[in-house]
Amino acid sequence: MKGKLYGIGVGPGDPGLMTIRAKELLDGAQVIAYPVKKPGEDGTALEIIKQKVDISGKEVVELLFSMNPDDEVRKRCRAENIDRICGMLDQGKDIAMITLGDVAVYSTYMYLDREVRDRGYETEVVPGIPSFCHGAAKAGLPLMIGEESLAVLSMAKHDIGKVEKAVDCIDNIVIMKAFASIREIADMMGRKGIPLSNATVMSNIGMEDEYVGPLETDRKYGYFTTVLIKKKVN
Amino acid sequence: MKGKLYGIGVGPGDPGLMTIRAKELLDGAQVIAYPVKKPGEDGTALEIIKQKVDISGKEVVELLFSMNPDDEVRKRCRAENIDRICGMLDQGKDIAMITLGDVAVYSTYMYLDREVRDRGYETEVVPGIPSFCHGAAKAGLPLMIGEESLAVLSMAKHDIGKVEKAVDCIDNIVIMKAFASIREIADMMGRKGIPLSNATVMSNIGMEDEYVGPLETDRKYGYFTTVLIKKKVN
Repeated sequence: MKGKLYGIGVGPGDPGLMTIRAKELLDGAQVIAYPVKKPGEDGTALEIIKQKVDISGKEVVELLFSMNPDDEVRKRCRAENIDRICGMLDQGKDIAMITLGDVAVYSTYMYLDREVRDRGYETEVVPGIPSFCHGAAKAGLPLMIGEESLAVLSMAKHDIGKVEKAVDCIDNIVIMKAFASIREIADMMGRKGIPLSNATVMSNIGMEDEYVGPLETDRKYGYFTTVLIKKKVN
Repeated sequence: MKGKLYGIGVGPGDPGLMTIRAKELLDGAQVIAYPVKKPGEDGTALEIIKQKVDISGKEVVELLFSMNPDDEVRKRCRAENIDRICGMLDQGKDIAMITLGDVAVYSTYMYLDREVRDRGYETEVVPGIPSFCHGAAKAGLPLMIGEESLAVLSMAKHDIGKVEKAVDCIDNIVIMKAFASIREIADMMGRKGIPLSNATVMSNIGMEDEYVGPLETDRKYGYFTTVLIKKKVN
């Protein structure tokens, strides 16, 4: 019998924020696969699960997903990973591929899921806590309440125009991967007449240099930095 | 010593999607409080945790949150609940207030959290899986991928204009509480030139009449209905 592929969101970092189902599936999985951008890179998701799941005796597989700007290189890389996964599924092994946060929020896993399903294998997606939910919890703030709307976007490509458009039509804005764009975000808020005190920075949550607090433009923030802007403070 | 108030997201319905931390805190809590809109109403969040947590021997408290359109009535109702909670905290009891999905996503709990903190008590928010993450997992679809943006909003007040504005500036739209607005959503997509096949309905997930599939305007959907519109299908 063929194995089954699980795409498992392990949450934002705190191992206690893994779901009961994620832990059960990881306990039972024969193969644990984790994505890296560079060979030998630290697997953050792997470090998280190790605190709750005994991975000794399991096959642990690093899957390289190139971030090469060339579309073709990235596609070839994905195709190789899919071949490798299907090869293991053919051997009857169940594979748990882990991903930081939630699987549906900016995760590479979703590219694989459809392709593997299309090739006739069974797959299952197990959701995880998105980092912005953990950030809001730490800040003691709602993402949205009453009739408000929420936008979630990424500043990985420094596209502040996209953020400005969102601010025009949405009540609360979550900006992920914001660490190198804090000044642009502050300037944009100034142009829109939104007080800087309406922004909350949630940075490296659960890590040593965790920071949850006001947006300060002269402060250095870690890689995992999210900004929550509320147009109206309740 | 005073007790501590925990606001705990128990996830979208599947008890396995509770976090490990939520289960641990609920196992240890002396008081479990759950919100209802009408006295004696079914507590959906309570039914979920009962499948993983033994609540016998715990004090289980129903908190009525009026949905009266009069602001003053709703505020008075909240104030009464806060007094009651603080009374129990004064007795040294730890209280776990449970909420469906995530605490930061349209939850009444956040109104209480700040007020209780302001009165000098300790509180903690524990995030949960939002229903839209579970829906996307069931549908095998990303909420957003690459550089895409996401909007999440509610159609509780039938404000289709708000949805149209979001469609103009955001790539993917999650519309919660959509069950009575399916026709308006379909018409709006027509006006915007978005094929109806770009919408996925996730309805009553985990319940008997669960439906995850295309938006069909002549179908009846349950109360917990969310629509995911993708402007561009990957």
